[in-house]
Amino acid sequence: MILKSFQDYYPDHFSHCYGCGRLNEYGLKIKSYWDDENTICRFNPKPYHIALPGYVYGGLLASIIDCHGVGSAAAAIYKSEHREMGTEPAIRCLTGSLKIMYIKPTPIDREIILKGIIKEVQGKKVIVEVHLSVEDDICVNGEVIAIRIPDNYLNIK
Amino acid sequence: MILKSFQDYYPDHFSHCYGCGRLNEYGLKIKSYWDDENTICRFNPKPYHIALPGYVYGGLLASIIDCHGVGSAAAAIYKSEHREMGTEPAIRCLTGSLKIMYIKPTPIDREIILKGIIKEVQGKKVIVEVHLSVEDDICVNGEVIAIRIPDNYLNIK
Repeated sequence: MILKSFQDYYPDHFSHCYGCGRLNEYGLKIKSYWDDENTICRFNPKPYHIALPGYVYGGLLASIIDCHGVGSAAAAIYKSEHREMGTEPAIRCLTGSLKIMYIKPTPIDREIILKGIIKEVQGKKVIVEVHLSVEDDICVNGEVIAIRIPDNYLNIK
Repeated sequence: MILKSFQDYYPDHFSHCYGCGRLNEYGLKIKSYWDDENTICRFNPKPYHIALPGYVYGGLLASIIDCHGVGSAAAAIYKSEHREMGTEPAIRCLTGSLKIMYIKPTPIDREIILKGIIKEVQGKKVIVEVHLSVEDDICVNGEVIAIRIPDNYLNIK
């Protein structure tokens, strides 16, 4: 049995995102999972995702924090409603705002770990703190405020 | 005579960035210019830069705001020192922090305009406000805090 990621449960219509859509052939296809009470995503940047030689481009780091954050937010809403992921109606979120603090350069040749911490689930709004690290060294911190997409929008095909 | 963008003046060592490096063959290659007191960048997303069908992926918008912001910050420091861009020692900045507010979805099939407003140049720190719009409609607002890279680091090849 293969553990499905949050993104594997997204309806097809919501699976084209460049950052996390399983149907975007050019995209980053990040995968997020529960890790006890937190969420986790592992990502290996490509050589061309560079900023300065040896380090990852900040826009990519912002992008994967964003996608891991909104995926974690949707998973947190399912959990708060005591529902299994994949059950209908589907829950999906969009990014309301994104804050990124670059602490130190992120080396490009090692695996990046994103840890999501669900800070708040209140109505349609979820706040997720994301710590991005390489070999236990935090390089970037982020905060994603995600907004649940209304059910009637999810029916648009 | 072709008007050179801020990024065209970056030393080669600083021209590999996925967002704005002229030497990154896979990158976005954004180009920023002065527009009176503000700065401007025009960008046409690719069809695969999608979030939901019809709209641009938020991570891409964060990325181009980031790169336009740090490019504008370097240009603003040259200006504050009454120096022409391209004169030595080269001035380059890195992103300290990035805040992105998504106001409304950004349509994918039209030109995006980024307007940079230099809010503050103080020592090594520059604050740039960026408004991202499509057909005069603001879709995203951003704030980039850029930090000047020390001259001795710029000499690393």
